[in-house]
Amino acid sequence: MARDVESTKKRLRDAARQEFAEHGLHGTTVERIAARAKANKERLYSYFGDKNALFTSILIEELEKVAEAVPVRVERTEDFGELAGRTFDYLRTHPEVQRLLMWEALADTGEVADELNRRVHYRSKVEALEAAQRDGLLDDTISANHLQFLLLALANWWFAAPQIARMLTEGSIDEDEWAGRRRAVVEAANRIVCGKSPSGSTRSDREDR
Amino acid sequence: MARDVESTKKRLRDAARQEFAEHGLHGTTVERIAARAKANKERLYSYFGDKNALFTSILIEELEKVAEAVPVRVERTEDFGELAGRTFDYLRTHPEVQRLLMWEALADTGEVADELNRRVHYRSKVEALEAAQRDGLLDDTISANHLQFLLLALANWWFAAPQIARMLTEGSIDEDEWAGRRRAVVEAANRIVCGKSPSGSTRSDREDR
Repeated sequence: MARDVESTKKRLRDAARQEFAEHGLHGTTVERIAARAKANKERLYSYFGDKNALFTSILIEELEKVAEAVPVRVERTEDFGELAGRTFDYLRTHPEVQRLLMWEALADTGEVADELNRRVHYRSKVEALEAAQRDGLLDDTISANHLQFLLLALANWWFAAPQIARMLTEGSIDEDEWAGRRRAVVEAANRIVCGKSPSGSTRSDREDR
Repeated sequence: MARDVESTKKRLRDAARQEFAEHGLHGTTVERIAARAKANKERLYSYFGDKNALFTSILIEELEKVAEAVPVRVERTEDFGELAGRTFDYLRTHPEVQRLLMWEALADTGEVADELNRRVHYRSKVEALEAAQRDGLLDDTISANHLQFLLLALANWWFAAPQIARMLTEGSIDEDEWAGRRRAVVEAANRIVCGKSPSGSTRSDREDR
């Protein structure tokens, strides 16, 4: 019986994730999610509360998965490029994440689901950058929170504006094109952090070799 | 009579721009637009065709306004930062542009409104970057089309993910914060293009002074 509950919950969550990613919170219904999950909608209400609560729960779960899959480690300046590259990889293989964020943005009225916890999460990322700035690994011309946002922009915007990426692409979007996009993200992230290596030479100096 | 037609058309366009920005193509109705415009919905049909055609027409008009307001001029490497900054300014004062693009992205099925003309527009921007790379004003590590996309990302993502920008901001989002965001965009764009000045010194060299 417990197994049945877990299995139904999982089917409902999977269906909700797909429906919300496709149609947003307002564009989908409890009926559609239940039908897609081949479950009864009363089950959905009893397990998750209501549609809003389910959307929040799905979004938080997806963001936690991103955070887990792409942990922040800042030991060398070069790590930033690879960090942006791995965020890009994760978003590419999980297109529902960016879609959920866009639906959230379009419905945003000044406070989003789980905002307090998410602020704590972002704060920890910003603190890692601030520490790198204090240690002289990064320069501090761009403040750490703006730097963090812009690094996310490089990885995320491909999936927020895929139609613009497509219109900027000559020919088909094949694996070569994806590899080129990833290289561009990594290179741009490394350029933005524009940090100094421990030896004191700038990244650009090294690149000019 | 002709004046009445023009005035009604304008009211319908203004109402449509607001409704579509708020609710997207699928989330709004011809009835809502007509009511907001204090016009008859038959007028909307006779002037603009249908809801899809009106959405397309509004989006194209808005994108043309952006292109006009932020023309691409690439004479010195430093122009890129200011170009990104001006794009940022425009998007800040016209939040409906990014919202229309997001609704379009979420509904995208492989081809968007006016795709051919928009590709031509993007091509001209990419060609300007390619020329700057050939002239040695920019290095060509990042291909011109990816560079163009990433420069847009720096300016646009603030308005695509305002909730994330907010969660990364300590305190209130006042004019100082907006000024800091703009400076970060300009600086990051200048770093990404990472070009060489005509004298041969790198931008970073100059910054290290």
